[in-house]
Amino acid sequence: MSEQVGFIGLGEMGLGMARNLLAAGYPLKVYNRTRSKAEPLSALGAQSAPTAADAVTPGGVAVTMLSDDRALEEVTTAGALAQRLGEGGIHVSMSTISPETARRLAQYHAQGGSVYVAAPVFGRPEAAASRRLWICTSGPKAAKERIKPLLDAMGQGTFDFGEEVAAANVTKLAGNFLIASAIEALGEAFVLAQKNGVDRAALADMLGKTLFASTVYQAYGRAIADRRFTPPGFKLELGLKDVDLVLGLASKSRTPMPIASLLHDRFIAALAKGRENFDWSAISIAAADDAGVK
Amino acid sequence: MSEQVGFIGLGEMGLGMARNLLAAGYPLKVYNRTRSKAEPLSALGAQSAPTAADAVTPGGVAVTMLSDDRALEEVTTAGALAQRLGEGGIHVSMSTISPETARRLAQYHAQGGSVYVAAPVFGRPEAAASRRLWICTSGPKAAKERIKPLLDAMGQGTFDFGEEVAAANVTKLAGNFLIASAIEALGEAFVLAQKNGVDRAALADMLGKTLFASTVYQAYGRAIADRRFTPPGFKLELGLKDVDLVLGLASKSRTPMPIASLLHDRFIAALAKGRENFDWSAISIAAADDAGVK
Repeated sequence: MSEQVGFIGLGEMGLGMARNLLAAGYPLKVYNRTRSKAEPLSALGAQSAPTAADAVTPGGVAVTMLSDDRALEEVTTAGALAQRLGEGGIHVSMSTISPETARRLAQYHAQGGSVYVAAPVFGRPEAAASRRLWICTSGPKAAKERIKPLLDAMGQGTFDFGEEVAAANVTKLAGNFLIASAIEALGEAFVLAQKNGVDRAALADMLGKTLFASTVYQAYGRAIADRRFTPPGFKLELGLKDVDLVLGLASKSRTPMPIASLLHDRFIAALAKGRENFDWSAISIAAADDAGVK
Repeated sequence: MSEQVGFIGLGEMGLGMARNLLAAGYPLKVYNRTRSKAEPLSALGAQSAPTAADAVTPGGVAVTMLSDDRALEEVTTAGALAQRLGEGGIHVSMSTISPETARRLAQYHAQGGSVYVAAPVFGRPEAAASRRLWICTSGPKAAKERIKPLLDAMGQGTFDFGEEVAAANVTKLAGNFLIASAIEALGEAFVLAQKNGVDRAALADMLGKTLFASTVYQAYGRAIADRRFTPPGFKLELGLKDVDLVLGLASKSRTPMPIASLLHDRFIAALAKGRENFDWSAISIAAADDAGVK
């Protein structure tokens, strides 16, 4: 465990991930804009750094888990994360961002001798805390091999999508699009069921035990059937961010995606109705709203 | 196994189901419009009847697995299935039909003293053959208890949706809508992935092992990634029939379902392009067509 690791971004996801790196024995320097968020990790032996660059050891590994493209870009360039990493350093970028930003940052790193690896994750905060994230990677092979033990300490499995650095980001966006699509479809199906005399919970139960016996349908199916959208596991606003990343990519690559366009409107409508503190599965309320169901 | 069972409708689904009833030891009379389809069952000991009514024993159980509302209605009324069943008889109706038809036929049976039970199934012909169907039931309790051993001989599990006779039909339509929605979403996601440098098969593999580790996503994900739509497990035209049943029910119950409306157009377009002998998952080609992918 001689790898020196800097962890930047201690939000709901990052905190659990950093804790698992500590538990695996990595010496950890951590940084978060709101510095008090580092306190639970300091108590576990992490060193709290005053800036992102200070959390990074030259030639070491920097892990970032930030809210969006802009935050990641700022930390990496203006915040000097890349410069500090330098020759032999690896940036493990785990945020959900656009493939375009990933490619640009990979080039930026290359100029200073460090390597950028995309490693976005699937899973909510509780999965991050309990080391059950699924991780998708893309980027240079040697770097991915070197960081494998770190990823193993944070997730239950890693899927590689090759050397093109943005491939994992495309995959992550496709995955989030599929989850949001399933949420919308469940919302429509449950309103149809309810208006025609079928118990929503019984339907969710059957689906989750038969055709759709997977995490996404079981967890969201139950939540949508029960209309339980707080506390949010993944906030509605973050869902809009991701769907807009999907639509941006779809637009640039000339890929019409009618369900993604519908989802965009569903997110906008949910925010218009003041649902910003709900889980993103609350977009499913729209189908009920439209059908005059209270 | 003293129950006298008549089985009507020996299509791709019905044949496997009838065979499993025979294997479970039920004395079976069978009927199919094209009579030669009964031959494999006759070889196994089933009695081939010249008409649907002739397959039915008064006071016994009639199982129907027909192509649509009209065929079922014709067999039940003009074909005298209900009259022949009479007092103490049960009609186990396993076709995918509208809730409206189910309610009407239940009343029709009640007039003659027999009972109608809705028992539509989830599963393709191979699941029917290997007794892995999922069965949804609704209707009078006592009748459902009496037919339970028959359902157990045809499926791997039964989910009950109460006494309102059409509830299981609503459930079946909601389920098929969710499958078709997943197909469309997978189609859109895979084109996005492909146009942005991600291998479709690798994406399908990851999804099926992580977020969407369920039959629907694994089977259709793989087929859509490989663009393998023949031989059809469920023909495109049958998919249109079901989506239109969903939209009919949605319209009558005043339930706007934007994904269902999109699906209708996808099915229509696929038929317009001569894909009638493809599996219904071939609606996913539309996303590729729209994106100029060959």
